Amino acid sequence: MEACGEEVQVQLLGGSTSPYVIALAHKGIHYEYIEENIQNKSELPLKSNPVHKKITVLIHTGKPVCESTIIVQYIDETWDTRAPFLMPKDPYDRAIARFWAAFIDDKLLPCIRAVFRGQGEHCHKSVEETVANFLILEEALRTHLCFSGKAYFGGDGIGFVDIALGGLLTFVNALEKGIDSVLIDAEKMPLLSAWMDRFCEADGVKEVMPDPVKLLEFICATRVKFASLPAAN
Amino acid sequence: MEACGEEVQVQLLGGSTSPYVIALAHKGIHYEYIEENIQNKSELPLKSNPVHKKITVLIHTGKPVCESTIIVQYIDETWDTRAPFLMPKDPYDRAIARFWAAFIDDKLLPCIRAVFRGQGEHCHKSVEETVANFLILEEALRTHLCFSGKAYFGGDGIGFVDIALGGLLTFVNALEKGIDSVLIDAEKMPLLSAWMDRFCEADGVKEVMPDPVKLLEFICATRVKFASLPAAN
Repeated sequence: MEACGEEVQVQLLGGSTSPYVIALAHKGIHYEYIEENIQNKSELPLKSNPVHKKITVLIHTGKPVCESTIIVQYIDETWDTRAPFLMPKDPYDRAIARFWAAFIDDKLLPCIRAVFRGQGEHCHKSVEETVANFLILEEALRTHLCFSGKAYFGGDGIGFVDIALGGLLTFVNALEKGIDSVLIDAEKMPLLSAWMDRFCEADGVKEVMPDPVKLLEFICATRVKFASLPAAN
Repeated sequence: MEACGEEVQVQLLGGSTSPYVIALAHKGIHYEYIEENIQNKSELPLKSNPVHKKITVLIHTGKPVCESTIIVQYIDETWDTRAPFLMPKDPYDRAIARFWAAFIDDKLLPCIRAVFRGQGEHCHKSVEETVANFLILEEALRTHLCFSGKAYFGGDGIGFVDIALGGLLTFVNALEKGIDSVLIDAEKMPLLSAWMDRFCEADGVKEVMPDPVKLLEFICATRVKFASLPAAN
């Protein structure tokens, strides 16, 4: 679907569960997926993201773009004539969307990572913090969506915040099974829970969501490894 | 200079040393500054920023915008016909600018805060981490500016990254005096050091930079208070 025809201009390094995979799929942009072993990175992500040395890198026409929320904005701004549009048109709505995307990235995600890595009391404490952050998102949905009558953070269609949060869902659901704890409680978070079901079933999303069985296997195997390390907690 | 004439539509809560003060001044946007006591916040910032409860809030036509880098983008996008423009026009350049602004906000700033709060060995370790992050910015300047021959991260004029970093400079310089340690070493960081001098002397910047003497007094008094608290380290 690229303007250049068959040539693949977009490459993704690792990050099959990342929000920008959904952003690319949602806008119908072809890409080449390059599998990266998170435990044993090749030189390409280290060269493309020398500051953070993380594998969440999109390479477009040979140039690297790093960090999930920055990549999603880059995708929307580069293919700015291709609907659906992920960022709101209005500057104030854009500021609100960036606020919640930053909340998901800077507050929620570190808690989810701490649940994934933690054992015993550390894991339990991180579960509580994660649930508290999901409750803040439930409240955001109550405030923003109930008044507007819209289905998504992005309005009638999936937008920036939906993608930032939605990119974590399969991992969160698999993690709940892996640790046998509830993180998104349908009773306490009815709006978030309903939003999650809508998001996961949306066209252009369900096709690219990662395999939950493989993800659960990965989570369980990695947590066993963390548990054997003295520095895991 | 507002389109609405004399009416003040923009209010700032606290944050006199924040990047968005420079952004507003640089674009020539009038605002009303509402002093907030960082130790004893009034209800307005708590109401305007209920999630993070921080005082970095801009209120425009009654609506709050939170988080420094989001506010700077909001200012540029709302007054999008008013030069100078802070964000680059090209989506890739915008992604790079967002990357460095996020680095300053998420990596450098927490280290500077740790220097400010730390005592003894904790402070020493945070100084080392801060210096390491400034060295990464020196390298970024070497890579980006030396090839382009430009004066600022934003090109020939001050842009998003300059403002994100520049908003910290008076505090960093006062902190260096307060702890009697060098954070921006002119010998090891000649490009960053020269950029700093250019930035601080630029029209529209020097007029709004906070008073370094008052800031030093604040830093010293607060560090004495931190030192007396058992949880300060």
